[in-house]
Amino acid sequence: MGKKLKIGIIGAGRIGKLHAENIMHHVIQAELVAIADVFVDQIKDWAEGLGIKTVTKDYKDILNNSEIEAVLICSPTNTHADFIIEAAKAGKHIFCEKPIDLSADRVKAALNAVKAAGVKLQIGFNRRFDHNHKAVRDAVAEGKVGQPHIIQITSRDPAPPPIEYVKASGGLFLDMTIHDFDMARYLAGSEVEEVYAAGAVLVDPAIGEAGDIDTAVITLKFENGAIGVINNSRRATYGYDQRVEVFGSNGSAEDLNDTPSTRIISNADGIISEKPKYFFLERYNDSFIEEMKEFVNAVLNDTATPVTGEDGLKPVLIALAAKKSLEENRPVKISEVVL
Amino acid sequence: MGKKLKIGIIGAGRIGKLHAENIMHHVIQAELVAIADVFVDQIKDWAEGLGIKTVTKDYKDILNNSEIEAVLICSPTNTHADFIIEAAKAGKHIFCEKPIDLSADRVKAALNAVKAAGVKLQIGFNRRFDHNHKAVRDAVAEGKVGQPHIIQITSRDPAPPPIEYVKASGGLFLDMTIHDFDMARYLAGSEVEEVYAAGAVLVDPAIGEAGDIDTAVITLKFENGAIGVINNSRRATYGYDQRVEVFGSNGSAEDLNDTPSTRIISNADGIISEKPKYFFLERYNDSFIEEMKEFVNAVLNDTATPVTGEDGLKPVLIALAAKKSLEENRPVKISEVVL
Amino acid sequence: MGKKLKIGIIGAGRIGKLHAENIMHHVIQAELVAIADVFVDQIKDWAEGLGIKTVTKDYKDILNNSEIEAVLICSPTNTHADFIIEAAKAGKHIFCEKPIDLSADRVKAALNAVKAAGVKLQIGFNRRFDHNHKAVRDAVAEGKVGQPHIIQITSRDPAPPPIEYVKASGGLFLDMTIHDFDMARYLAGSEVEEVYAAGAVLVDPAIGEAGDIDTAVITLKFENGAIGVINNSRRATYGYDQRVEVFGSNGSAEDLNDTPSTRIISNADGIISEKPKYFFLERYNDSFIEEMKEFVNAVLNDTATPVTGEDGLKPVLIALAAKKSLEENRPVKISEVVL
Amino acid sequence: MGKKLKIGIIGAGRIGKLHAENIMHHVIQAELVAIADVFVDQIKDWAEGLGIKTVTKDYKDILNNSEIEAVLICSPTNTHADFIIEAAKAGKHIFCEKPIDLSADRVKAALNAVKAAGVKLQIGFNRRFDHNHKAVRDAVAEGKVGQPHIIQITSRDPAPPPIEYVKASGGLFLDMTIHDFDMARYLAGSEVEEVYAAGAVLVDPAIGEAGDIDTAVITLKFENGAIGVINNSRRATYGYDQRVEVFGSNGSAEDLNDTPSTRIISNADGIISEKPKYFFLERYNDSFIEEMKEFVNAVLNDTATPVTGEDGLKPVLIALAAKKSLEENRPVKISEVVL
Repeated sequence: MGKKLKIGIIGAGRIGKLHAENIMHHVIQAELVAIADVFVDQIKDWAEGLGIKTVTKDYKDILNNSEIEAVLICSPTNTHADFIIEAAKAGKHIFCEKPIDLSADRVKAALNAVKAAGVKLQIGFNRRFDHNHKAVRDAVAEGKVGQPHIIQITSRDPAPPPIEYVKASGGLFLDMTIHDFDMARYLAGSEVEEVYAAGAVLVDPAIGEAGDIDTAVITLKFENGAIGVINNSRRATYGYDQRVEVFGSNGSAEDLNDTPSTRIISNADGIISEKPKYFFLERYNDSFIEEMKEFVNAVLNDTATPVTGEDGLKPVLIALAAKKSLEENRPVKISEVVL
Repeated sequence: MGKKLKIGIIGAGRIGKLHAENIMHHVIQAELVAIADVFVDQIKDWAEGLGIKTVTKDYKDILNNSEIEAVLICSPTNTHADFIIEAAKAGKHIFCEKPIDLSADRVKAALNAVKAAGVKLQIGFNRRFDHNHKAVRDAVAEGKVGQPHIIQITSRDPAPPPIEYVKASGGLFLDMTIHDFDMARYLAGSEVEEVYAAGAVLVDPAIGEAGDIDTAVITLKFENGAIGVINNSRRATYGYDQRVEVFGSNGSAEDLNDTPSTRIISNADGIISEKPKYFFLERYNDSFIEEMKEFVNAVLNDTATPVTGEDGLKPVLIALAAKKSLEENRPVKISEVVL
Repeated sequence: MGKKLKIGIIGAGRIGKLHAENIMHHVIQAELVAIADVFVDQIKDWAEGLGIKTVTKDYKDILNNSEIEAVLICSPTNTHADFIIEAAKAGKHIFCEKPIDLSADRVKAALNAVKAAGVKLQIGFNRRFDHNHKAVRDAVAEGKVGQPHIIQITSRDPAPPPIEYVKASGGLFLDMTIHDFDMARYLAGSEVEEVYAAGAVLVDPAIGEAGDIDTAVITLKFENGAIGVINNSRRATYGYDQRVEVFGSNGSAEDLNDTPSTRIISNADGIISEKPKYFFLERYNDSFIEEMKEFVNAVLNDTATPVTGEDGLKPVLIALAAKKSLEENRPVKISEVVL
Repeated sequence: MGKKLKIGIIGAGRIGKLHAENIMHHVIQAELVAIADVFVDQIKDWAEGLGIKTVTKDYKDILNNSEIEAVLICSPTNTHADFIIEAAKAGKHIFCEKPIDLSADRVKAALNAVKAAGVKLQIGFNRRFDHNHKAVRDAVAEGKVGQPHIIQITSRDPAPPPIEYVKASGGLFLDMTIHDFDMARYLAGSEVEEVYAAGAVLVDPAIGEAGDIDTAVITLKFENGAIGVINNSRRATYGYDQRVEVFGSNGSAEDLNDTPSTRIISNADGIISEKPKYFFLERYNDSFIEEMKEFVNAVLNDTATPVTGEDGLKPVLIALAAKKSLEENRPVKISEVVL
């Protein structure tokens, strides 16, 4: 076995812990040597049990640790841009959770710092590594659907997040649909030029009172002429509904939801199969491991990361355009939100 | 067996012949006694073989025939409104193919004539009688999905019509999507207030040269707050793709395509099931029989027809709004196209 | 339109009525001119409404009617052989419901009479004309599965027949499995050489008291080396379960059940699709029409019938062997039950 | 985290290596401290990379290592019984790959040794831990199908093993079907009383020349009255076909194959979904991890193992009865092969 990539993680919330465990158990070519979190007391036992050597309150202990070659930024969104800039200056390769920031300006500032430092940057759009969505993308890339005409994404959560989360989230488009905007670009193999968003508050009035929506249909126009359409809901009673389709000149490639098992029960009530895997931790479990393996490989082999800084910026721009579209009830060009 | 409803048909093109054969073979309570077509020589043998007593060049022979209680208007679209008005004046109950007319004014004139004459009118939105779509609608009506949030319709033809047909069709929205506009209203149980249409010419440049589009995604906002989305293509290489979904507060009801058989072949190439039934004559075959049975029942039992004149007007208005939306690239309210 | 085949039906029970209605409504090239039933009073109104000219108590009125070219024998099983013999002598072409008789000797006597008279005979194994099973057979015939290795048939009724019916039925194998024995030969394209039957009374003890079984697994060895396996139950709570598979050297062809619609409801309880069509009248509806069309065509065009007298004999022999196998708990060769 | 179970493995072939990697990467509560293989040179690098401390040629180094509490026996079948006896005498808890032995006598001798030593024994029937089959079993245990009537198992390999393997395998029933015999008992919740086996050489004549068969249909009669049926083939061109069904008084529970993704491609050729996961390493990957976790838990918590020595013996007896049935072409009672 070759050299292992030494990694530090900033932020040990749900997603930080997930990456930590994946690295320790599934990413053979990496080693997690340090983790930083402001609530350091709450993670000590967990980190120790996992075998992480350094557990600290101060993220600078990670940036200053010369042994560490790469950092994972898993802290709250509003800290991402700053941490990217500091980590880049410290010469660390960077994996950053999505979105980079809710402001396009700050995203650009972060990307500039990365460029200046010559470090690698990968954004956590994990769904690109999902076996189903990837299989659809592969079919497109192999020409099996021909020229893409319609990109269709159904993306529904099983239940809305707490209202406090909603308030700080930046809104449905920047918090939830941003994954779908990335997926749309990934599937279409083309950039979005214009967005039209229709939204409604149908799941929970409290979400409306918080200034957000919980149901949306978004139309995208791509540079290559294709039309995209995303439908979102914050609550699908049957679980996490994650399906995509690329329809093109030669045919269609689509995927179905993953289920805990393929069991079918037939009785007097009907023919009953299993609900989709409950939420993103279940459905996209393997994709988190895959994205980390690819990040580690990109750093170790000095190749391009599969999800670049540009890939981090574009969905933010689409989301900002969608937001403006919803507010003004008109189609909005991406160029309108680019400074 | 009770009294049979005596029917005359005006127009013996593809759809007129289809209704004629359905009445003779499948609608026990009706009798087709006369058919009129300007190309009467071309239908004589067929009509005789079917056992139709009167075959005429002049539609007035049908309207003046006092034995005939109901007429089916299956002539070209631009004649529908006039024939409705004349048939109503002649006191005949009327079944008219969709759309009534491409002009909202003329539709209204026709509906007024029907109202004044006190005759029944049913519009040929046959898809409402399709076993799959009806089962989805039934689930909605029975409250199985709760309050509708998102109405989603995939509607794709296997191949575009001849360019000459396209030129005279009134455009994709009035020719093809009009069925989907009706289906959206039927599924949502609510009226459309606003439309946004994105369209493209991706299937055949000749369609664009004819001033039409061949690919579209249309967003609908309903009075009850639900959002609808329709995606259309003039060419799906795998056949006629006709699927609908109603997603709501309690869950989702959707249907899949019908196939010629349920056969699955498993071999080294994959697991291969059958393509959808090829086009509307195959897929919606039974629905044409059902709509005719219901029309006949409505007349014989003096009950309301299941698809009213209002149901004929509304999709035309939505289509006109969609057309305007496409031209002006902005959401258009239905109220903008109503005089 | 050419000449119509004039048909008479002997026996107007459920299946006789079904054929009568199919001929009148769906088989354009035939005309049902007479029907005979011992309970003639009970069918008068129905027959009149259908437009059948002659309704009689005496089947001889049909055999003696020189206008009638073909007869359908739909009377109780124990009368089939005699009616075949008489009809053959009268020079009528014959369609006879399955089974010809429960005794191999009497079947042979009937077939000899048919041969001597030079008339056509078709046996009512309607499932061969089912769109799904036929599609599987077509795949086999086209070489898509290669050389057949395993023929698998799942055949389960939604509910057991009345006990009185069971007592007179000749037992599960001759009453129910006989269809599957025919299907096995049809799918395999080879004759059965040996049978082993395992049976049990698990659905209703009354069936056991009547000397019959309600659950069975039957193994078949074919001349071409393939192995067949049939599983039967008299009661599937979810409806009529009718699936077949041919597994071979190149792959597998199988079919799924037909359902009333393709609707899928997704909610907190699961993903729920429709149960199979309830029973044979629903599931095999179209196959009854198809078999009649093919019989009429065979007579009119003087071609071979698609299900011959030999095809009527063979499943009886297999059923008799299965019965013997069950009684003696050992594999039984077909040659053991052939005199 | 509590105490880790220290494990040694005897035999580092394909399955031994699989267990080793699973323990190191996925079974947190266990530690693999030693591995023995006669071809020790061939595994040195691999074992070192994995971090196994002791790598030895002599299995006694494992049995004599007092630190080791449990051993995994992954050596060739003919050594299983002896290793079980020696390991039991050494006081080690034992996980042994299936089958324990091809001779019922030797199996019993091994089980007696385990009993005398008071150690735990688990047999490697991993399929019980497969998410799909387990979900079917759970439905049965929860009463969702009622009383089981028919147990149906389709079990087909993607390709036959090398002829040398076939010759030493003990035959299809002891090598391949033995998993299905275990599955049948597990699903039925009842013991097999009688077996009838039909077999053929249809895949490869060389298998017949080696004295074995490659295609089989086996009927099982259970103590609870249910009937079981297994169909096997050594070559399914579309991959590993592993499906089970329990049909009972209240309905049916069945599962479908797992696939690499849920992708569906629709084009002019058909509607094409993915083939099953290729073979047991892909399909049953997670089940190997699960069985190991359960073994480790059983030892650490001093609870019963989920697959006991008795569970190891019974399928061998069924396989021996099946073999006798095939040779003598008659149903064979299990009691006939028990001494």
